[in-house]
Amino acid sequence: MISVVIIGAGNVATHLYRAFKAAENISVIQWYNRNLDTLKPYAKEVEIVNDLSALKEADLYLLAVSDDAIKSLTNKLPFENRLVAHTSGSVGIYDIDKKHKRGVFYPLQSFSKAAKLDFANVPICIEALESKDYHVLKNLAISIGSPTKKVNTDQRRVLHLAAVFVNNFTNQLYRVAHEITESEGAEFDLLKPLILETAKKVQDLSPYKAQTGPAKRNDKKTMRKHLKLLNETPHHKAIYELLTESIQRTHGRKKL
Amino acid sequence: MISVVIIGAGNVATHLYRAFKAAENISVIQWYNRNLDTLKPYAKEVEIVNDLSALKEADLYLLAVSDDAIKSLTNKLPFENRLVAHTSGSVGIYDIDKKHKRGVFYPLQSFSKAAKLDFANVPICIEALESKDYHVLKNLAISIGSPTKKVNTDQRRVLHLAAVFVNNFTNQLYRVAHEITESEGAEFDLLKPLILETAKKVQDLSPYKAQTGPAKRNDKKTMRKHLKLLNETPHHKAIYELLTESIQRTHGRKKL
Ligand SMILES: NC(=O)c1ccc[n+]([C@@H]2O[C@H](COP(=O)([O-])OP(=O)(O)OC[C@H]3O[C@@H](n4cnc5c(N)ncnc54)[C@H](OP(=O)(O)O)[C@@H]3O)[C@@H](O)[C@H]2O)c1
Ligand SMILES: NC(=O)c1ccc[n+]([C@@H]2O[C@H](COP(=O)([O-])OP(=O)(O)OC[C@H]3O[C@@H](n4cnc5c(N)ncnc54)[C@H](OP(=O)(O)O)[C@@H]3O)[C@@H](O)[C@H]2O)c1
Repeated sequence: MISVVIIGAGNVATHLYRAFKAAENISVIQWYNRNLDTLKPYAKEVEIVNDLSALKEADLYLLAVSDDAIKSLTNKLPFENRLVAHTSGSVGIYDIDKKHKRGVFYPLQSFSKAAKLDFANVPICIEALESKDYHVLKNLAISIGSPTKKVNTDQRRVLHLAAVFVNNFTNQLYRVAHEITESEGAEFDLLKPLILETAKKVQDLSPYKAQTGPAKRNDKKTMRKHLKLLNETPHHKAIYELLTESIQRTHGRKKL
Repeated sequence: MISVVIIGAGNVATHLYRAFKAAENISVIQWYNRNLDTLKPYAKEVEIVNDLSALKEADLYLLAVSDDAIKSLTNKLPFENRLVAHTSGSVGIYDIDKKHKRGVFYPLQSFSKAAKLDFANVPICIEALESKDYHVLKNLAISIGSPTKKVNTDQRRVLHLAAVFVNNFTNQLYRVAHEITESEGAEFDLLKPLILETAKKVQDLSPYKAQTGPAKRNDKKTMRKHLKLLNETPHHKAIYELLTESIQRTHGRKKL
């Protein structure tokens, strides 16, 4: 049995709370948030607190709070020599106050409170300074059905950056496609199966091998037609040019 | 029963051939390619030809050949007043020689010969000049289980362009993420569930509503950290800057 105190009540904390409650060998002994109102709906199933001095002893204090709050909050925790971990992709392990045993439990997914999420699809990137602490965090991840990976702070930072490319930037390309199709009264919905297929393809094939299209084949005629269609929207055109150039750089083509 | 002659033997023709053969009310009466060798493996199950003058009468002649070949090939077909359709996203319906009844049967997906594809996930964009021909094409699509949509040439062109954004450009973002993670010895594999989740999210939610991350929240501190990590790779940095700006434009933020 792993006993956990959850600190924070945002997107990540809420999803982890649910997964921990559902796991057989995890006991959530307290749930802390500076603002207790957010936690009120859970008062019947778990002890809720908003006073750091009331925190009980536990195997792990898991901080799922805003990146900027992590450092000072770990400093304010009124105990030492216990395992304290945060869930951030971009905050270092040494930002946790050195009076604690330190760890990181970074779930590589996009969380929003509303959407359901199966933790089997949430790889947990784990870092710890002591092997014993590493195993606590690893067992915690295994108990909620997540794959795990040992990842140091530098690696975690580039994963977080790469996640911005495959999540936020990719989603923005979907948005641009939405604007482009709507401009002619065509339906964005028609693109949805292609969006899914594109994501599925790289589950087994490298993005390098999966690439196709006019930029890769250096089909100048099609690219010229596309650029012409984008003449009225220079910000879309700039994206077309830059990503075409990027594909051609990757696949050893000359510039447009 | 719809009788079809397939012309061309590339990615699209091969997938359509298989789907037509499996459909109850479609009869592939001939399969033409200028190079007969490609068709030899199918000689036992369908009549293969490489001589245009040997083409038999059919309800539909479906040209799945390179965009540049469509116009002249339709001109060379030794008959008139029969339904001839192409499968291209960017070629106009009037590029088909006017001696024919003309149509377009554009499958909005990414085809490669090796990968299996369920036509339930391939929306067919249909255009025809006569309502009777439209219905032949529509019934053909329905017979292979595909959703269909009436789409005119301008709409088809923007869909084809938008497909480049959600397929080729998105795949290139995956590639950049691959390069970024490998530069620190981190595993690209860890990003795969997030890639899939990002594509799934917009199946029900608009890309506008699905957006999250530092650019949307205007989290300058995180963006500065990311840009610093990209200092050594200016072409990745340029993509970061342009797509961040694009997100901020969409969501009414000021420039970086
Ligand atoms: N969202 C994701 O997709 C995701 C994915 C992986 C990792 N992460 C990481 O997980 C952590 C939490 O992210 P989130 O999305 O769950 O954030 P969130 O929904 O914005 O919630 C932030 C939580 O932090 C608390 N908080 C903020 N400042 C505080 C302070 N000064 N003192 C005490 N508590 C404070 C907030 O308390 P109040 O309720 O009182 O405001 C809230 O409970 C971050 O480190 C983030 O980088 C997020
Ligand atoms: N691939 C996709 O993902 C996709 C998706 C939607 C629509 N499309 C459209 O579907 C059509 C076919 O694409 P594809 O990917 O199947 O192409 P492909 O794999 O490159 O095959 C092209 C076919 O066209 C034939 N061909 C080329 N030039 C010709 C000429 N001058 N005369 C006669 N035949 C000629 C080739 O014959 P040989 O075998 O003799 O070279 C080959 O059979 C194009 O209009 C394309 O825009 C493609």
